[in-house]
Amino acid sequence: KRRGYPEAVYCAGKTPEQVKGIAQALRDHTGVTLFTRADQEHADAVRAVLPDAFHDPIAKLVAWPPDPPAPTGERVVVVAAGTSDLPVAREAALTAEYLGRATDLVVDVGVAGLHRVLAHVELLRRARAVVVVAGMDGALPGVVAGLIAAPVVAVPTSVGYGAAFEGLAALLTMLNACAPGVAVVNIDNGYGAGHLAAQIAAAPGQP
Amino acid sequence: KRRGYPEAVYCAGKTPEQVKGIAQALRDHTGVTLFTRADQEHADAVRAVLPDAFHDPIAKLVAWPPDPPAPTGERVVVVAAGTSDLPVAREAALTAEYLGRATDLVVDVGVAGLHRVLAHVELLRRARAVVVVAGMDGALPGVVAGLIAAPVVAVPTSVGYGAAFEGLAALLTMLNACAPGVAVVNIDNGYGAGHLAAQIAAAPGQP
Amino acid sequence: KRRGYPEAVYCAGKTPEQVKGIAQALRDHTGVTLFTRADQEHADAVRAVLPDAFHDPIAKLVAWPPDPPAPTGERVVVVAAGTSDLPVAREAALTAEYLGRATDLVVDVGVAGLHRVLAHVELLRRARAVVVVAGMDGALPGVVAGLIAAPVVAVPTSVGYGAAFEGLAALLTMLNACAPGVAVVNIDNGYGAGHLAAQIAAAPGQP
Amino acid sequence: KRRGYPEAVYCAGKTPEQVKGIAQALRDHTGVTLFTRADQEHADAVRAVLPDAFHDPIAKLVAWPPDPPAPTGERVVVVAAGTSDLPVAREAALTAEYLGRATDLVVDVGVAGLHRVLAHVELLRRARAVVVVAGMDGALPGVVAGLIAAPVVAVPTSVGYGAAFEGLAALLTMLNACAPGVAVVNIDNGYGAGHLAAQIAAAPGQP
Amino acid sequence: KRRGYPEAVYCAGKTPEQVKGIAQALRDHTGVTLFTRADQEHADAVRAVLPDAFHDPIAKLVAWPPDPPAPTGERVVVVAAGTSDLPVAREAALTAEYLGRATDLVVDVGVAGLHRVLAHVELLRRARAVVVVAGMDGALPGVVAGLIAAPVVAVPTSVGYGAAFEGLAALLTMLNACAPGVAVVNIDNGYGAGHLAAQIAAAPGQP
Amino acid sequence: KRRGYPEAVYCAGKTPEQVKGIAQALRDHTGVTLFTRADQEHADAVRAVLPDAFHDPIAKLVAWPPDPPAPTGERVVVVAAGTSDLPVAREAALTAEYLGRATDLVVDVGVAGLHRVLAHVELLRRARAVVVVAGMDGALPGVVAGLIAAPVVAVPTSVGYGAAFEGLAALLTMLNACAPGVAVVNIDNGYGAGHLAAQIAAAPGQP
Amino acid sequence: KRRGYPEAVYCAGKTPEQVKGIAQALRDHTGVTLFTRADQEHADAVRAVLPDAFHDPIAKLVAWPPDPPAPTGERVVVVAAGTSDLPVAREAALTAEYLGRATDLVVDVGVAGLHRVLAHVELLRRARAVVVVAGMDGALPGVVAGLIAAPVVAVPTSVGYGAAFEGLAALLTMLNACAPGVAVVNIDNGYGAGHLAAQIAAAPGQP
Amino acid sequence: KRRGYPEAVYCAGKTPEQVKGIAQALRDHTGVTLFTRADQEHADAVRAVLPDAFHDPIAKLVAWPPDPPAPTGERVVVVAAGTSDLPVAREAALTAEYLGRATDLVVDVGVAGLHRVLAHVELLRRARAVVVVAGMDGALPGVVAGLIAAPVVAVPTSVGYGAAFEGLAALLTMLNACAPGVAVVNIDNGYGAGHLAAQIAAAPGQP
Ligand SMILES: Nc1ncnc2c1ncn2[C@@H]1O[C@H](COP(=O)(O)O)[C@@H](O)[C@H]1O
Ligand SMILES: Nc1ncnc2c1ncn2[C@@H]1O[C@H](COP(=O)(O)O)[C@@H](O)[C@H]1O
Ligand SMILES: Nc1ncnc2c1ncn2[C@@H]1O[C@H](COP(=O)(O)O)[C@@H](O)[C@H]1O
Ligand SMILES: Nc1ncnc2c1ncn2[C@@H]1O[C@H](COP(=O)(O)O)[C@@H](O)[C@H]1O
Ligand SMILES: [Mg+2]
Ligand SMILES: [Mg+2]
Ligand SMILES: [Mg+2]
Ligand SMILES: [Mg+2]
Ligand SMILES: [Mg+2]
Ligand SMILES: [Mg+2]
Ligand SMILES: [Mg+2]
Ligand SMILES: [Mg+2]
Repeated sequence: KRRGYPEAVYCAGKTPEQVKGIAQALRDHTGVTLFTRADQEHADAVRAVLPDAFHDPIAKLVAWPPDPPAPTGERVVVVAAGTSDLPVAREAALTAEYLGRATDLVVDVGVAGLHRVLAHVELLRRARAVVVVAGMDGALPGVVAGLIAAPVVAVPTSVGYGAAFEGLAALLTMLNACAPGVAVVNIDNGYGAGHLAAQIAAAPGQP
Repeated sequence: KRRGYPEAVYCAGKTPEQVKGIAQALRDHTGVTLFTRADQEHADAVRAVLPDAFHDPIAKLVAWPPDPPAPTGERVVVVAAGTSDLPVAREAALTAEYLGRATDLVVDVGVAGLHRVLAHVELLRRARAVVVVAGMDGALPGVVAGLIAAPVVAVPTSVGYGAAFEGLAALLTMLNACAPGVAVVNIDNGYGAGHLAAQIAAAPGQP
Repeated sequence: KRRGYPEAVYCAGKTPEQVKGIAQALRDHTGVTLFTRADQEHADAVRAVLPDAFHDPIAKLVAWPPDPPAPTGERVVVVAAGTSDLPVAREAALTAEYLGRATDLVVDVGVAGLHRVLAHVELLRRARAVVVVAGMDGALPGVVAGLIAAPVVAVPTSVGYGAAFEGLAALLTMLNACAPGVAVVNIDNGYGAGHLAAQIAAAPGQP
Repeated sequence: KRRGYPEAVYCAGKTPEQVKGIAQALRDHTGVTLFTRADQEHADAVRAVLPDAFHDPIAKLVAWPPDPPAPTGERVVVVAAGTSDLPVAREAALTAEYLGRATDLVVDVGVAGLHRVLAHVELLRRARAVVVVAGMDGALPGVVAGLIAAPVVAVPTSVGYGAAFEGLAALLTMLNACAPGVAVVNIDNGYGAGHLAAQIAAAPGQP
Repeated sequence: KRRGYPEAVYCAGKTPEQVKGIAQALRDHTGVTLFTRADQEHADAVRAVLPDAFHDPIAKLVAWPPDPPAPTGERVVVVAAGTSDLPVAREAALTAEYLGRATDLVVDVGVAGLHRVLAHVELLRRARAVVVVAGMDGALPGVVAGLIAAPVVAVPTSVGYGAAFEGLAALLTMLNACAPGVAVVNIDNGYGAGHLAAQIAAAPGQP
Repeated sequence: KRRGYPEAVYCAGKTPEQVKGIAQALRDHTGVTLFTRADQEHADAVRAVLPDAFHDPIAKLVAWPPDPPAPTGERVVVVAAGTSDLPVAREAALTAEYLGRATDLVVDVGVAGLHRVLAHVELLRRARAVVVVAGMDGALPGVVAGLIAAPVVAVPTSVGYGAAFEGLAALLTMLNACAPGVAVVNIDNGYGAGHLAAQIAAAPGQP
Repeated sequence: KRRGYPEAVYCAGKTPEQVKGIAQALRDHTGVTLFTRADQEHADAVRAVLPDAFHDPIAKLVAWPPDPPAPTGERVVVVAAGTSDLPVAREAALTAEYLGRATDLVVDVGVAGLHRVLAHVELLRRARAVVVVAGMDGALPGVVAGLIAAPVVAVPTSVGYGAAFEGLAALLTMLNACAPGVAVVNIDNGYGAGHLAAQIAAAPGQP
Repeated sequence: KRRGYPEAVYCAGKTPEQVKGIAQALRDHTGVTLFTRADQEHADAVRAVLPDAFHDPIAKLVAWPPDPPAPTGERVVVVAAGTSDLPVAREAALTAEYLGRATDLVVDVGVAGLHRVLAHVELLRRARAVVVVAGMDGALPGVVAGLIAAPVVAVPTSVGYGAAFEGLAALLTMLNACAPGVAVVNIDNGYGAGHLAAQIAAAPGQP
């Protein structure tokens, strides 16, 4: 358990057997463990050992114990620009929940239709940290940061084609956001964004 | 005179003497000629031959004859995100004027303060073509395109630092704009943007 | 319906089920809807709900209602440099048609054989907007723009190999076109090009 | 005043006259204003109007009114990997102070000498947000994030040569930091980092 | 046999038949030959001719004769930051062994948990050359080089996603390592790293 | 003298003193020597020793002995797209002359005005090798190669701005030229292009 | 038939049906036609119409009529650095043959074993044009150009991994070759290289 | 003193005053200190405090105490491809000397003239480590590594223009060297190369 936060196992480069081995070592462990980027095989391997583990196939996340802790600290809101950004947004939202924050998820709030953004300003302003997930032009985090006082955690996604360059365009947009208060994480890194938002929204003196 | 539009002389790679030579050849020419990216020396060289030539040092543009033609066609609006984008925006606006369009220029309309964009929606909707000039995150054209039915000509600028990569970040943002109707030109190419907007807003059957 | 233009559903990141759900919501909708980047599965999902929807598998486009509106405004011409550029060119041409423009499509007009370009000058000059689709060196839009007074919408394609860098070479060529009047859109973005051309060629006061 | 935080004027693209005009408009303004990336000429222009304005030539920051507000919220710690990173680190520290946070600045804590990092762990653990400024390999933020529970705001700098690619190498390192809890801002963006850290460390319900 | 070191056959671009042909030519050859990047088919092709050849499917290495030579020179230690880096690390370790060095392999020593690095300092200091294999941020080699006097051979891996850019981020980090004494090889080049380490740790006057 | 061709001294990285030393060593040398990328100081240093050396300040070329050899082999034609490409084009033309070819130079033949290209087809068809020099979009070599049977040596120049990326855009265009028969050299490498053209146009059995 | 040279059909982006259609149109055509980048399906489609067409599956080339013309002009030599470069090298050699040149092909001549290069100097010096095909570091063309007086046509290949960046590393090496006389074509462009070499080695006044 | 090796002060980002302060702190220090990338002002600042400090203005290196230690361990040879690479090569050679190795420096050994490389094989084979410094195509290290059994430390330089991309081309070439045994350091990093070579050539059990 790193510094009070759940351990996370990055499954992408591991065989199901390796993941199973890690799951076995956790049986007597008390804290939360997240398995990120878990394919169905990885999930099956974990559940062979920990049958009640929670699995979200869209977010590709497995969590154990299955229930998130009772929320402490302040609220996290996760906003996704399009439905294609949903997997990353869910990964962020679930991570924040398993780290102990009350979390809302709002989808399909692109800058091409500003009214959709403006319709959620009240919700956004209630959050202690807002995760904004966007691909293609990646313009949404800068717009949101201009509307609220809380920090925005911006996650570029690899959604798009051509000059989107697998998320690079969105990444650069977010690093150059005109509004201050935008914290950028790696492309498609929903886990990192949810973790960061949970840290920001943590209760004083608490992980 | 190419296809009915004014000739443009790109001064950046030319000596003042070369530019003077071109100006001399124009004395008996009847159409409009623009000298773009003209330093003070280039402007002086033109005015040594054509003393009444118009010179805008911010846009680095010299025009002769000095007066733009009486406007035909429809309206062009040029919008700049920040004051640092002004030189490029003026180059676009002046080019559109010298190509015969009635043109408005609005500055300091960044996406970090949406109210500033929304305050100009009426003006934007009156245009047949809107040029949007922005550096750093380059998010403004996509937001404007979502608010109007006319085409947006997007000009990325080299304003910014670090991961702005001299306008590359803004360029990629604009190419990936979520709203359709965004036409992109080269970084800092105010001349090209004004030209394109003037073509779009031309009266039927007219250059 | 955004600003008077048809809604477009980008299928690439969506499951057939998600696309089907969107199609169901459209049943009582009156305007045109386009489904872009639709695989066969996406098309089948739409047609399960809207059986008479139009489907072009080369352009990967589904449209509903199936018949394009009666044309208004002026003519759009779409030119493709090579037959490998056909899918993108058809997507552009169909989009312009479903947005209400009379549209022509000309294929195999590369710069390596100038006579083929020159043979179409008359047709090109009749258009209010010309879409030029080209991969590899992407040189065609600049050549066309030098021959006509109307704006050229340039679409780089990912056709080619090696230093074509999946359309990047063509994109840069187009952004640096020596002739003014070239509006660039994202690599392989036939939909965006057709939309932009339709906006340029729209009748006054009409989307 | 955006959302309760000080206004910041980005001087890099502005003439001293433009900056002076902005300073004049501030005379009756009550909140804090920061002038970032202010050369000596920019600073002189501000002080011609607001003679008691604070000026730090290393951070290239001008602030008015000159005294930072009494600190509220929790502590911010700024860490710089090398002395060449000092200008960016000071810009971050001063920004956090003028936004109302108690702030410490520690310099010369590179990963090549881990004992220097480890010697400051106690201080780092007292912070609600830690800004880590590093050029070249940019490895320090990930190491710090592994040692503490609070979020790390990572600022890549353009310090270095060759394959440092003006901060790009450090930027990529930080985006790929193995420890979660790393929020990345633009290269050399001390202002943005200090702002973000101040937001994170703000007292509840307070900008 | 080049300059006294084993010959290596790079299988990636070869058909199993071509590899079989090379194996046949080796039957009467006395020195060691390594087949790198050997898929199962390549390995089968070699073993059809040299049935006792050694095959490590994780490292994708085939060696013949099967037993490494008795070690000479000094010790090589190979360190991998994560388990996903294991294939490259094993390729390095096996190569060093087949070139005649006594070799240790230590896995899962990331910079996000410094105690894991520090726990191996004794082992690291006993080596004449240390190979450090790391993906994502690639920060480990610089940290190790700061702890020991021997040279570090740094191998970036393509482990990671997004802004890891298939190993480019780790490569740049390693080239910019703040500690001197870091020798960088190509991304995923375990063979080259093991070879270089074996050369460094060779006994005087010996390949 | 390498393989029968003149020696070339690349002055860019050398002090005038170093260049002078090289000139002194040449006094009793019989063949042609070229000093490329020679600033005025470099030229002065050569002429202090070899007073009759030829110096072209636009091409930044110094040659000694001053007179090119009597032409052998076939004709070389050098074509420049714009006047800003002149320095590189002259360097190419002079190099070909000093290597012993009869050479023509034609300037200002951009693809945006095809008639200008077509006007020179007769001249182009008389050449054994055509050097085509172009910046910005770099489209001219492909167009020329489509018109003639002889090889085209394409030289991208760093002329342009923004997405020209200092010649990279032109370089990529040329590497992707749709017409076969295009040989590409480094950006701004007039010397290399002239040398290559001279080799192609050499008389049989002659350097 | 372009300018006297065979027509080439680039099959990569075409369906077998499209290729078959082209083959049908050729039945009464007299000149040579090459089908490049032809998969087995493309080859089958051609041979359904032109049953005696020549097909080389390694070079992915189909030629019709099947026999190359009797050689004219001078000799072309094609050199490949490694066996993985063979497909590209064969494509170059066959193209030169079908364009009417006598052609030799030499494989496995890497710079890591200079003796292998030096062993072929006599053959290389007999050529009027040498095609050098190399991946990874792409160093061979510069070494060969230093040994001979004839032009070298350099073809980078996508052979390699990691920082080879699919041929980019080899491409840059070749563009920066220290020896003059190196003409570069696109990555993996064996057809273009063979074509260019055949043009260089053509008999006077002959395609 | 890091791990037994001299301390090095990187002057590039420091004011002369800061460097002077560091020099003062060294007065009673016994080990060797190197000041790298020292401009004349930096050198003067050091010598104001340590008047007998050694200064090499080409290598931009200052060393104190002025005399290198008596050599231990084995020989280091530094090879530079061209005279423009001399500053980096001298920085490498002097660093190796001040770290206690006997060092030779050979200049102007480009791959375009193989005989110059081959003429030095005996010297190269006597070294325990060879530093190879090269810009432009960066091909020399791979050629040298193919000729000797000792490791090659490859230093790309920023010498060249255009597609040399300030040393990137040479860097990639070196990372992809076909011969094993090539250790790459950062562009222009003579200090790092000399340090690494000195570590490799150290006597057993000695820094
Ligand atoms: N600022 C500019 N940016 C891009 N193209 C330009 C600019 N100014 C002029 N041009 C184009 O450059 C060409 C003139 O170049 P030149 O003959 O070198 O003066 C014309 O085709 C213009 O359309
Ligand atoms: N150093 C800086 N880096 C990035 N953004 C800045 C900086 N200084 C000010 N800004 C932002 O730039 C905007 C002010 O720009 P301007 O109106 O051009 O002065 C504000 O939104 C600031 O938050
Ligand atoms: N995995 C590898 N990575 C880089 N180079 C290799 C690898 N395996 C073998 N080589 C080198 O590639 C050459 C053999 O290539 P080949 O003749 O194509 O098998 C030898 O010089 C080896 O040193
Ligand atoms: N302008 C140039 N661009 C590229 N290579 C050049 C140039 N001028 C000379 N060279 C080559 O550089 C080498 C001479 O370099 P140096 O010995 O440093 O003067 C020779 O091989 C020349 O062919
Ligand atoms: Mg905010
Ligand atoms: Mg719009
Ligand atoms: Mg036009
Ligand atoms: Mg942390
Ligand atoms: Mg060390
Ligand atoms: Mg040709
Ligand atoms: Mg040669
Ligand atoms: Mg070696």
